[in-house]
Amino acid sequence: MRTSIATVCLSGTLEEKLQAAATAGFDGVEIFEQDLIVSPSSPEVIAGLAAGLGLSLDLYQPFRDFEGVEDELFAANLARAEAKFQLMKRLGMTTMLLCSNVATATVDDDQVVVDQLRRLGDLAERYGIDVAYEALAWGRFVSEYDRAWDLVKAADHPRIGTCLDSFHILSRDTDLSRIAEIPGEKIFFLQLADAPALSMDVLSWSRHHRVFPGEGSWDLTDFLARVAGTGYAGPVSLEVFNDSFRQADTQRTAVDGLRSLRWLEANVSAASGAKASAAGEAEAPGAGLESNRARLNLRPLPQVSEPRGIDYVELSTDDLGALTRQLHQLGFRFVGFHRTKPHVQLWRRGQARIVVTEPTSRHYESTAVTIDSTDPADEAAAVAADSPGSGTFLRGIGFAVDDADAAMERALLLSATEVPRDQAHDEEVLRGVFAPDGSEVFFGDGNGVDPQWTDEFGTVPDERQSAIDHINLAQPAHHYDEAVLFYTSLLALTALPSQDVPSPSGLVRSQVMSSADGAVRMPLNVSPDHSPNPLSRGTGSPAETYPEHVAIVCDDIFTAAMAAVARGLKFLAVPQNYYEDLAARFDLEPELLGRLREHNILYDRDDRGEFLHFYTSTIGSVFFEMVERRGDYQGYGAPNAPVRLAAQHRRNTES
Amino acid sequence: MRTSIATVCLSGTLEEKLQAAATAGFDGVEIFEQDLIVSPSSPEVIAGLAAGLGLSLDLYQPFRDFEGVEDELFAANLARAEAKFQLMKRLGMTTMLLCSNVATATVDDDQVVVDQLRRLGDLAERYGIDVAYEALAWGRFVSEYDRAWDLVKAADHPRIGTCLDSFHILSRDTDLSRIAEIPGEKIFFLQLADAPALSMDVLSWSRHHRVFPGEGSWDLTDFLARVAGTGYAGPVSLEVFNDSFRQADTQRTAVDGLRSLRWLEANVSAASGAKASAAGEAEAPGAGLESNRARLNLRPLPQVSEPRGIDYVELSTDDLGALTRQLHQLGFRFVGFHRTKPHVQLWRRGQARIVVTEPTSRHYESTAVTIDSTDPADEAAAVAADSPGSGTFLRGIGFAVDDADAAMERALLLSATEVPRDQAHDEEVLRGVFAPDGSEVFFGDGNGVDPQWTDEFGTVPDERQSAIDHINLAQPAHHYDEAVLFYTSLLALTALPSQDVPSPSGLVRSQVMSSADGAVRMPLNVSPDHSPNPLSRGTGSPAETYPEHVAIVCDDIFTAAMAAVARGLKFLAVPQNYYEDLAARFDLEPELLGRLREHNILYDRDDRGEFLHFYTSTIGSVFFEMVERRGDYQGYGAPNAPVRLAAQHRRNTES
Repeated sequence: MRTSIATVCLSGTLEEKLQAAATAGFDGVEIFEQDLIVSPSSPEVIAGLAAGLGLSLDLYQPFRDFEGVEDELFAANLARAEAKFQLMKRLGMTTMLLCSNVATATVDDDQVVVDQLRRLGDLAERYGIDVAYEALAWGRFVSEYDRAWDLVKAADHPRIGTCLDSFHILSRDTDLSRIAEIPGEKIFFLQLADAPALSMDVLSWSRHHRVFPGEGSWDLTDFLARVAGTGYAGPVSLEVFNDSFRQADTQRTAVDGLRSLRWLEANVSAASGAKASAAGEAEAPGAGLESNRARLNLRPLPQVSEPRGIDYVELSTDDLGALTRQLHQLGFRFVGFHRTKPHVQLWRRGQARIVVTEPTSRHYESTAVTIDSTDPADEAAAVAADSPGSGTFLRGIGFAVDDADAAMERALLLSATEVPRDQAHDEEVLRGVFAPDGSEVFFGDGNGVDPQWTDEFGTVPDERQSAIDHINLAQPAHHYDEAVLFYTSLLALTALPSQDVPSPSGLVRSQVMSSADGAVRMPLNVSPDHSPNPLSRGTGSPAETYPEHVAIVCDDIFTAAMAAVARGLKFLAVPQNYYEDLAARFDLEPELLGRLREHNILYDRDDRGEFLHFYTSTIGSVFFEMVERRGDYQGYGAPNAPVRLAAQHRRNTES
Repeated sequence: MRTSIATVCLSGTLEEKLQAAATAGFDGVEIFEQDLIVSPSSPEVIAGLAAGLGLSLDLYQPFRDFEGVEDELFAANLARAEAKFQLMKRLGMTTMLLCSNVATATVDDDQVVVDQLRRLGDLAERYGIDVAYEALAWGRFVSEYDRAWDLVKAADHPRIGTCLDSFHILSRDTDLSRIAEIPGEKIFFLQLADAPALSMDVLSWSRHHRVFPGEGSWDLTDFLARVAGTGYAGPVSLEVFNDSFRQADTQRTAVDGLRSLRWLEANVSAASGAKASAAGEAEAPGAGLESNRARLNLRPLPQVSEPRGIDYVELSTDDLGALTRQLHQLGFRFVGFHRTKPHVQLWRRGQARIVVTEPTSRHYESTAVTIDSTDPADEAAAVAADSPGSGTFLRGIGFAVDDADAAMERALLLSATEVPRDQAHDEEVLRGVFAPDGSEVFFGDGNGVDPQWTDEFGTVPDERQSAIDHINLAQPAHHYDEAVLFYTSLLALTALPSQDVPSPSGLVRSQVMSSADGAVRMPLNVSPDHSPNPLSRGTGSPAETYPEHVAIVCDDIFTAAMAAVARGLKFLAVPQNYYEDLAARFDLEPELLGRLREHNILYDRDDRGEFLHFYTSTIGSVFFEMVERRGDYQGYGAPNAPVRLAAQHRRNTES
């Protein structure tokens, strides 16, 4: 599948955008006219730059407000088109996007539009240019893809085809079945964008809130499969207008975009393979469709299932005493030091495992890695190695997966950057990659129960019913959509609907990434402030203001709380006002209410069950939560989150 | 008029919010329940704190999902209400907000609702509490204010009244005429919010985008006048959910809020006075209405008309040579040094005046001012005095107004902070205040033509047709709405619809504040990044990345450009691609196109006229624009702004 990206998706100058697209691995780009106009580079220089980078210039866009107009304006519009055709020749480009008329259309007459398209086609023929006509969702008269196709079909001109754009089609919720009517060779271009479910005017939605496939709420796999079914063989291109992407680092956005296309390609490939094998050898209906699909040359990825559990959470600390004391207070047992790395130790509570490392250790290892600075992946690794956060922070998460090698291979094919790591020859080889928030994601074989690598720390049996319930991560602003796609595409996690949680310093956007069985649950929180150093971990990271936490599930929260008290745990204090409100909201037994109050335990309830939990004080940018789930409660005590955020805010502003 | 503010409008803890509201000068607050629940202070402590600050606790809110339910749930809801009444007693509060049922209503029967309201009234009577019933715009069955009023009227209970909230009413575009039917004493509470015109679901609009009166698109003056006409005599309160306010400095937001109410109060007072005087002494219909209005005790402000012009722009510079060279190149003439302040000089081009100061000067003056740190106004001044920006930056603007004393008095009554300034005994007394972006706003009597204070610099006649056309200011994020209200309420400027301008590092939101005759035009630009030091001027301000500029209008831009070239001006370079696009867009004479290209002049045209303009290179965070307006063109060449932003971005990233 040939991949392409519109320059408007990326921040920076045109020259920077081309460089970023090429480095990420795109095959081509769409030139967004505005980017060229503001560039000091001539069209010839841009063409040369793209050629040198190995990028094809796939689409010149947008050409607007052309058709459905009176004769006089039409003549001016043709002249305008010719000027652009001349420009495209200088760029060596052969496909132009024509958007349905938004502003100047006055004639809603198919015959007039068809005639005007045909005359544009004649002109385009002289320049060897193809024109891809697209229905904008807010077009004056033409706003549906099938209407645009009907007009193109009627124009019946070899230089006039259609452009399908998932945003304009899916935002209007148009029936998709007529896509199958369009011969693939009459689809001159394909643009993809996803979008979150928002109820707002479609123009604002389009201009500010598009995201890459996999980051929104639409089924782009189905959409691409339908287009592939027509025999379309051209580039599959991203066209995303997004306020955050416009501000984010160009190179990261480009990598994020390519990941979305690789993921989508593999999804369609897998779905198509499944259909083909279901059809068997017989002459199934749709065999022609399969061969059509093959024209896009869809490449698969190693398939992964969602993780079966959390192997461990790794915390880095420069305050070993405080951290291990708190683990002990929470009922964790010290398993041992790593047999060859004395600065690494393992703690466990049932199946909840915390690896504690001292921060200098990885630093020493990493600087030994040879960095090839021309490879951006290595560069990212170098940056990570150069700035190992100080303080106490969440460094990484180990996921238990069916096939760690496949997961790692998939991650690398999805442009993730490998974590440089030294391994002794007789150790379990754990490999991993950096997540968008700078944390490390490691893949281990198994189901999360007593993974083999723990032998390297010694053996401490622990049959208690306890495990990691969820891990709450702080995400840097502007990299939130990237994070959703990262966990979706690498780990097959699912994004649950997002929530806004009020805190004293702003709303915290919270979205849970979860496996279907709940074995892996990770609320991602985006803090309202823009951290000065958003991609490092430790000091200066978003977690400084909105600390991250690891939640441990137990089977009796009161026992856990009492044991913790006996060991001197500092709980996050819960206001008395909270308990009074709790009494008003729920018809709780006074005895239960009293016990909750006594132990600083928070409470929530829904139709499915109950949730009891308490928080520890924060060490560095990490704290712990102990939870007990009763019945089939699936949430995270969201109504109680503001209590926690306010208490932590007081701690921040007081200190 | 008694002013109040809901604690949810402000960032911080409940204790911080109360402090900020009192310091700003509010008479009371609404306690937003969530703020109390997360507070470690008991209700008695909060009541004491408020009393000590001189704040009344006007409304406990919100109580939700009460009415229109089956009997069993109703009993639980009554118990829930009683718990809150008990809490309110401890707070010493007497009015509770009841929102129309959103989640649990199942019975859409007036008689049931009326009966349930009445029973709530009986319970409230026992605690001496009034319940204000409000229709939420997204209420399940009750979503219109007049329906809520009909139910309250039918309940006919002394403890049950209604609450009017401008957001819930104006967002639904409900006919306002029935407000006049409600007796003022049955309106138990009044909440005001403004909002920008957005086309989105009303719940998201309400939760994220409300603003203070004067910062949105609604006519709150008319709304408040209608409520005043009923004889309502209670607090006028702000209830604004806004993502930016939640992040902004608490004290500033509180001041901003109080300013909005003072401004609104004066508007209604003025409108009411105008009506009364129009009615004269006769027994005009609506005289009763006037006396009703008087019950709110609306205080006037000194009235101001919009400014008649710009007296001057003051630039501070530590690179005097570069700045004055550029002024000379642009055809400015040196008028002289200030007769007592040799570090201050005046330059003019026709009626365009630029005061140039060296940055240390004000600093020396200001530190001599005695700062009383218990007064927040003085504290702001102290901060401003302590951190005089370095570099070259726009320090202030002098506005020509009808009555400078009235303007200054109004500004101070609207909680603006006076700029500390020394004045010699025989000098023109210019007084001014700080704008939200840290720039200084000075008021001078006159019409902007040869103001008297210029005598202090000497006399250089200059009859050229030239003046300040517009001033483009960079606004710190999160203080944008505050800025709109500031210029609206202090200077009677009008906010034009906002636009988004793409730049290589994100969209720049741009909104023009203007006088009706165009004598004063100030585009306010909000940069996408959050500056680390957003409220200072000079180094570290938003203008660092998005420099500010002063545009000078002339009657022949080519002559101005040629003169500038002859004097060695460095123009902002315009890409050739721009001129090629211009040729495609407009049918320009080749000769004109050639001249534009030769002189780096940008061009725009609309139905009303033409706009020709060029930019200088940037010094510090300031550059200049020279413009020529042909015909009745009223814009600012917005289509060309991306060209400028891209060129400036290249300059930033290259340097």
